[in-house]
Amino acid sequence: MLVGGTLDGDGSVQVTGVSGLEQARPGQLSFFGNQKYKKALAATKASVVLVQAGAPDRGAKTYIVVGNPPLAFAKVAQKFHPARQYVAGVSPKATVHPTAQVHATATVMDFVTVGQGAVIGARAVLYPGVYLGEAVSIGEGTVLKANVSVMDGCVIGARCLLHASAVIGADGFGFALDMSVPEHVKIPQAGIVRVEDDVEIGACSCVDRATTGETVVGKGSKIDNLVQVGHNSTVGPLSILCAQVGLAGTTELGTGVVLAGQVGVAGHLRIGDLSKVGAQAGVISDLADGSVVMGAPSMPSRDFMKSSAVFVRLPELHRELRDLKKRLEALEKGKTPS
Amino acid sequence: MLVGGTLDGDGSVQVTGVSGLEQARPGQLSFFGNQKYKKALAATKASVVLVQAGAPDRGAKTYIVVGNPPLAFAKVAQKFHPARQYVAGVSPKATVHPTAQVHATATVMDFVTVGQGAVIGARAVLYPGVYLGEAVSIGEGTVLKANVSVMDGCVIGARCLLHASAVIGADGFGFALDMSVPEHVKIPQAGIVRVEDDVEIGACSCVDRATTGETVVGKGSKIDNLVQVGHNSTVGPLSILCAQVGLAGTTELGTGVVLAGQVGVAGHLRIGDLSKVGAQAGVISDLADGSVVMGAPSMPSRDFMKSSAVFVRLPELHRELRDLKKRLEALEKGKTPS
Amino acid sequence: MLVGGTLDGDGSVQVTGVSGLEQARPGQLSFFGNQKYKKALAATKASVVLVQAGAPDRGAKTYIVVGNPPLAFAKVAQKFHPARQYVAGVSPKATVHPTAQVHATATVMDFVTVGQGAVIGARAVLYPGVYLGEAVSIGEGTVLKANVSVMDGCVIGARCLLHASAVIGADGFGFALDMSVPEHVKIPQAGIVRVEDDVEIGACSCVDRATTGETVVGKGSKIDNLVQVGHNSTVGPLSILCAQVGLAGTTELGTGVVLAGQVGVAGHLRIGDLSKVGAQAGVISDLADGSVVMGAPSMPSRDFMKSSAVFVRLPELHRELRDLKKRLEALEKGKTPS
Repeated sequence: MLVGGTLDGDGSVQVTGVSGLEQARPGQLSFFGNQKYKKALAATKASVVLVQAGAPDRGAKTYIVVGNPPLAFAKVAQKFHPARQYVAGVSPKATVHPTAQVHATATVMDFVTVGQGAVIGARAVLYPGVYLGEAVSIGEGTVLKANVSVMDGCVIGARCLLHASAVIGADGFGFALDMSVPEHVKIPQAGIVRVEDDVEIGACSCVDRATTGETVVGKGSKIDNLVQVGHNSTVGPLSILCAQVGLAGTTELGTGVVLAGQVGVAGHLRIGDLSKVGAQAGVISDLADGSVVMGAPSMPSRDFMKSSAVFVRLPELHRELRDLKKRLEALEKGKTPS
Repeated sequence: MLVGGTLDGDGSVQVTGVSGLEQARPGQLSFFGNQKYKKALAATKASVVLVQAGAPDRGAKTYIVVGNPPLAFAKVAQKFHPARQYVAGVSPKATVHPTAQVHATATVMDFVTVGQGAVIGARAVLYPGVYLGEAVSIGEGTVLKANVSVMDGCVIGARCLLHASAVIGADGFGFALDMSVPEHVKIPQAGIVRVEDDVEIGACSCVDRATTGETVVGKGSKIDNLVQVGHNSTVGPLSILCAQVGLAGTTELGTGVVLAGQVGVAGHLRIGDLSKVGAQAGVISDLADGSVVMGAPSMPSRDFMKSSAVFVRLPELHRELRDLKKRLEALEKGKTPS
Repeated sequence: MLVGGTLDGDGSVQVTGVSGLEQARPGQLSFFGNQKYKKALAATKASVVLVQAGAPDRGAKTYIVVGNPPLAFAKVAQKFHPARQYVAGVSPKATVHPTAQVHATATVMDFVTVGQGAVIGARAVLYPGVYLGEAVSIGEGTVLKANVSVMDGCVIGARCLLHASAVIGADGFGFALDMSVPEHVKIPQAGIVRVEDDVEIGACSCVDRATTGETVVGKGSKIDNLVQVGHNSTVGPLSILCAQVGLAGTTELGTGVVLAGQVGVAGHLRIGDLSKVGAQAGVISDLADGSVVMGAPSMPSRDFMKSSAVFVRLPELHRELRDLKKRLEALEKGKTPS
């Protein structure tokens, strides 16, 4: 069986598709991966649910007990929704520079521009409106959705997926103020972006080119929509950057770092391996490996939750403090307050 | 008269255009909708101002007293700035799949791609660079500005307006970690986005497709620029999402919800009808209908403002606390401090 | 010499390129502009470093002592990385309206749309996928990267640089609620955007057109990626808006204002000249010239840092307060607590 696991229930159920617990219809397979969704599990119409050992009562459903339900679900779902196949070839409505090398199995759709000296790997797919600058390299099996722009010299690895309107290799944001004019003098952004293999980058996300050297998105990292990765930053392998995250510049994320939505990380910092940063946090100092932080400026998540609980009560604390002060003054004067 | 209302002043003034109080020139009509702008009202050069009963002294201006000045203004402004008319037809420089159905009154401009089985309604308008995937449906009178991407299977209702570079139907952000490799295994995103009628979506905003089922933007909702709507979320009808808002995923907004700029809402929550969330707030728990919240984590706005007022004074409170402690210790030792 | 300055070390070193301290190789020139990077200075492989007087021991490196190292570096770097030269002419694969005026020295690449009555200045460059609406004006030497959209009537000055997928002139976000339907009635956005000379605007950044009049980005201002500038805002000259900043609407920034990443500024405010707003701050009231603020709501940065230091200790303070209260009660009862 695809997912392994132990069957608990009717083994003859025919699975016709996959779905989340809440959207599932009879005949579908779903998964229960988090105790938060106990209610959804009880109410689901899914016929089969992937669960961990010790899941709540299964009722009339069939359970398959596996070690990692979301992972098992992902694998089953991939069977039901195989990757789309593309017809190879270069559209006559695309513009491919004569010096560019496009693999015979690649797909280049209409209104695509492929710049001088660019290299497009096997089975790569460029959707309409994609722009590739000079000397851009696109790895095997990588898919660039509509209106993606990859600027001069940037390198995208194999099996990557870039969603619509992502921008790779816009200039880093670097200027020097000349007060004598006055003007902000542009520091040329002469580096590139290197996106390693198996990376996904969301719609309208921006990874800026380095001033010199490389901005790097490491192997297997996944970046959501509307994310900003500043120049000369390094996103370690296997990291997760949720929507609207911003990395300032020369920021170094270790391996397997998770940044929740709208997190901001200041420049010239190192975020240690496997660190987890809560939504909207603002990180302004290095984080050791395995840090779990929230807040702005960020602090250990447990501390943040405790301090936040007190924050709500600050007006009350303030009143109490004033009250204590009065009573203390009264005592100091040798009498209790009226 | 278009707006109804009661005239207070010179009824013979010829209105030549509309404008905000601050930008208005003589001959123009403006409106006063918020007591905050009393100064602008006093200083305006507008000849006619739409006001509510009880507005400040009108000076030499003409007032028209109406129930809802901004609404009356919107209606007058629409008369002065009627919707643009487009020439129907498909540009020979567009690519329309032979199986796609484009209504005879629709406008398809240059460099547009219309995918297999797509359906374009009457008077719909596709600006240059628009990409429509397979089986996309665009309702009557809907306008997609330049470089908008609508991915496979997504449905856009009637009379919608999508601004440049908006992306509808990029993959939801879903992965399962396989530690044995290690890698983040992609959970296929097989659902769609359904945008109901009369919706406006801002430039570079992203509405992700559902994992299974639908991500929904409800009828009459208005979404500003650079907004992220995560997979399987539901934006209730008549909601307002200001710029840079982010909804994580499987987030449910009720009817008439207002999220101010840069708000973040965590996943698997319900935000009740008519709730108002202040700018930059972070919502991490369900909100009852009619909630008015601010802060991160969010709390009732009144509480947030009070707590914020104390936050500024925390160092002072801290000092006072230490002082009280010393004095108390002194008292406990049976003497007042020196 | 290009940068002026005083030589300290081996004047015969041949500089082969420029780089940041951390990425530099032997033969390269770098700069030391901030005491934070003392370690990087000590460890750099750069052969020549631009420094201010009083820099740390130079070791085997050559120093050039200048007044403003980043500025000197920018100027040297521009020599090593001169601006790209473009071949003038209009691609036959572009669509230029017959009434548009394109300067003979301008470059219009494939799949570009130039609307009715648009004017393109000398040496301006339009990358593939650029969309210019009716009556758009593009100044001399201005470069619009791939998939940039500039909507009807907007004016871009000379020597500007707009990065990929930037959107200039999408509709401002203005509606009036008509409860009788109910619906949000659109307030027509009939104004324009005016971007003055020497402005840089980042990838996927959005500057909305005014309701009436103009939204203005002042001369020499630099805007990073994914920034939102709301309708009728004015960004004063020489301002710096870092990534993911949001200006609500009718916001006025003075001269030389610096907004760090993810800052939000509410509408109808004035931010005084030379103000500096820290990352993620939320500004909800006017700021005097020269303000230096952080936090949300924003406050003087020094106060924010002090209050934040106490915030982390709030649970401890809370405990101390309760302890003091108990002890005080005991004293009030005439006895010390057990």
